[in-house]
Amino acid sequence: MQDCIFCKIIKKEIPCEKIYEDKNFLAFLDIEPVSFGHTLIIPKKHIVWMKDADDFTISEIFKLTKKLMLAIEKGLKCDFAQVSIVGEDVPHFHIHLIPRYFNDNLPRFPTKKYKDGESSEVARKIIQKIV
Amino acid sequence: MQDCIFCKIIKKEIPCEKIYEDKNFLAFLDIEPVSFGHTLIIPKKHIVWMKDADDFTISEIFKLTKKLMLAIEKGLKCDFAQVSIVGEDVPHFHIHLIPRYFNDNLPRFPTKKYKDGESSEVARKIIQKIV
Repeated sequence: MQDCIFCKIIKKEIPCEKIYEDKNFLAFLDIEPVSFGHTLIIPKKHIVWMKDADDFTISEIFKLTKKLMLAIEKGLKCDFAQVSIVGEDVPHFHIHLIPRYFNDNLPRFPTKKYKDGESSEVARKIIQKIV
Repeated sequence: MQDCIFCKIIKKEIPCEKIYEDKNFLAFLDIEPVSFGHTLIIPKKHIVWMKDADDFTISEIFKLTKKLMLAIEKGLKCDFAQVSIVGEDVPHFHIHLIPRYFNDNLPRFPTKKYKDGESSEVARKIIQKIV
């Protein structure tokens, strides 16, 4: 797509520090990394969000994510690589792979508790929309 | 596995608020949710981390993740559902699907910058471990 920064990276109109490329996917270093080695994995086809991806893309991109997760863990000797997919910022489906260390003290999301009966009601709302 | 809390949930030794179940996978509400509807998706087979999963499990669990992402977004009218996979806490592969709202003010990971040449060196370390 014309104004998409990731499509421009795919077309080499914007440079990137490439980690991996094949016919369907590209992986490169995030230029504002949470930690060094923070990688973005994208489909070459302009797919807006993960929810818009077809089954083939889903299967292949996550198999690639696992492959690069192993390479990041071995290459950087981090404790694990976190997968994160957010539905905001750049509207071209991208998977973050973030090298993590047990002592990195990154912020955690605060958690809540359900009151009695509340979780069943929430579950019901989700279940009725499963197709 | 005997002492695994998720295996106990699968065997119904510990109750859960179930969202979805089939032959290979179970999805249920996290009891300490970041937001109401926060769902965990797990393989029934005891696989420790995502990096230990075979290609079939990877393909199928992420197709299911997409299906439940759509159901969460429709059922709860959230702005998006974030996917997160961390390699610590419960050692039974699980995918977090967290209903998110543009105004939820959840903490963001702080970011860094590479110095000149640093990103190429990091990329090289990862690339040489891709198999």
